Amino acid sequence: MQPFSPDMMIYLLDMVGIIACAFAGTTLALHKRFDFFGCILVSMVNAIGGGTIRDVMLDRHPLFWMTDLNYVIVITTTSLVCQIFFTLYQKIDWTLKFFDAIGLAAFSVIGLKVGLAFGTHPMIAVMMAVLTSIAGGIMRDMICNEIPLVLQKEIYISASLAGSLLYFLLAKIGVATSLHDTLTLATIFGVRMLAVMFDWHLPSLRLNFKN
Amino acid sequence: MQPFSPDMMIYLLDMVGIIACAFAGTTLALHKRFDFFGCILVSMVNAIGGGTIRDVMLDRHPLFWMTDLNYVIVITTTSLVCQIFFTLYQKIDWTLKFFDAIGLAAFSVIGLKVGLAFGTHPMIAVMMAVLTSIAGGIMRDMICNEIPLVLQKEIYISASLAGSLLYFLLAKIGVATSLHDTLTLATIFGVRMLAVMFDWHLPSLRLNFKN
Amino acid sequence: MQPFSPDMMIYLLDMVGIIACAFAGTTLALHKRFDFFGCILVSMVNAIGGGTIRDVMLDRHPLFWMTDLNYVIVITTTSLVCQIFFTLYQKIDWTLKFFDAIGLAAFSVIGLKVGLAFGTHPMIAVMMAVLTSIAGGIMRDMICNEIPLVLQKEIYISASLAGSLLYFLLAKIGVATSLHDTLTLATIFGVRMLAVMFDWHLPSLRLNFKN
Repeated sequence: MQPFSPDMMIYLLDMVGIIACAFAGTTLALHKRFDFFGCILVSMVNAIGGGTIRDVMLDRHPLFWMTDLNYVIVITTTSLVCQIFFTLYQKIDWTLKFFDAIGLAAFSVIGLKVGLAFGTHPMIAVMMAVLTSIAGGIMRDMICNEIPLVLQKEIYISASLAGSLLYFLLAKIGVATSLHDTLTLATIFGVRMLAVMFDWHLPSLRLNFKN
Repeated sequence: MQPFSPDMMIYLLDMVGIIACAFAGTTLALHKRFDFFGCILVSMVNAIGGGTIRDVMLDRHPLFWMTDLNYVIVITTTSLVCQIFFTLYQKIDWTLKFFDAIGLAAFSVIGLKVGLAFGTHPMIAVMMAVLTSIAGGIMRDMICNEIPLVLQKEIYISASLAGSLLYFLLAKIGVATSLHDTLTLATIFGVRMLAVMFDWHLPSLRLNFKN
Repeated sequence: MQPFSPDMMIYLLDMVGIIACAFAGTTLALHKRFDFFGCILVSMVNAIGGGTIRDVMLDRHPLFWMTDLNYVIVITTTSLVCQIFFTLYQKIDWTLKFFDAIGLAAFSVIGLKVGLAFGTHPMIAVMMAVLTSIAGGIMRDMICNEIPLVLQKEIYISASLAGSLLYFLLAKIGVATSLHDTLTLATIFGVRMLAVMFDWHLPSLRLNFKN
């Protein structure tokens, strides 16, 4: 990878997302009174679980974290730091959501590109983008016996989908690939952060026939 | 596929099962107050989760829903309709169980045939039949933080097993393949519906040594 | 496999672990009032779930239990016996922990050797060892809607890790392979049993900045 190339940028943002996920996983695991290695395991599930499911579904071997050990090292280090300084991190909820939004954007773009590189239909590639960005968090909540947060009330899958749609739109118009990635990343991050700041929720589709 | 061939019939029954699963998934997700995309995700897990695990275990790629987009389209449409008209569907419990039994039969036969086509031992093929028909529902309940219904009290796995045993019995006798499939489908559907209608449960094996 | 060879010994210890896991799975499933086949399914998840995830992640097909039917037969038989004589087994907690520790040791060594045989980095091989020994129990608890026990308070992952580290240390020193396996097995079993007997727990890393 070239320094300052779009791929390098995506890799760096990916690592930011990995750190945010490892952080969120450790925090929840500590609340559940998991032990040292339990916290690390939940961090790993949260950070690389979605990408692992994507790769297994696409038959993409070896898994990305088996060849690039940075993932495991970064997650373990993050979880370690988070466990030691846990009590300091009680009020950084907003900061975590900021880095988490970067992760959502990076994970989505990576999932989309992996799907397309494997020649899947665009609809399936979009599903891979969503899967990469949310499956880790869902599995974290399943292990910790919580109802998955991302499925409940947050504009999360929607932000990922909005970015994916923009990606295909830009491809149709004929925008340069590097600009593609940057605009898609910015859109996902922007939609997610706006949702966090203004407490946006999806409206319910439910019609009421009870009257 | 020829129209009116056994394969076509199984495909159509499969789609009926997919709709029933998407329906059941959305209903549970709405009760859990999941948002629009959360409901669709749970529908997908419920409808194609079992087949996905089966294919991943057998190394059968690409996954069936990656090449035939009908699955994703049918699930999304079903979930959408179910979310809009949710309040109308409060009293259709029996109807849902009827379609769900069709799905159980179709999923089991498909799982069995896929296992056999991959040259697995009959015992493993039967496990693939059970897995295809129940793993989606189990994962749905795990995501929604519920104890899996199919493991608790219903004649569900038993109906699938009864059908699989009949399938091998018919093969040994030398019945024509098309008749095989039809009789197996009818048996699984029949056992399941009888269990629903007469509230059948498996007896506990537990001996009581306490006296 | 030669009789009395290290591989044969590991295979036998593996089966002891499989029985212990099938036992533990059935016991929890019975407490959750699962039916006959529900108990068998939870036993299977507990006993061969970890190895299945490992093999899927490493793209190692066919899965080990698809070619060696002993696994499925032993699990089903164990679950059957456990369900019939359940009330007799209320006070064998310590015995179960003994056999379970044998399973932890065997599963870890098998996972480690499979990882190394696939040419993964030692760090990834250690993760495969941990995964093989704990993922089944975690999935059992997830299905049964419990917070995973192995992540909470037990010296479990730590025992597996201690054994793996010793394995690489012995390899570096140049000890014979058969001695490797035996010493690693003994270490994992020993650490786990000592933790059970003396109620060892990992200390929390958390610093307290609240004063």
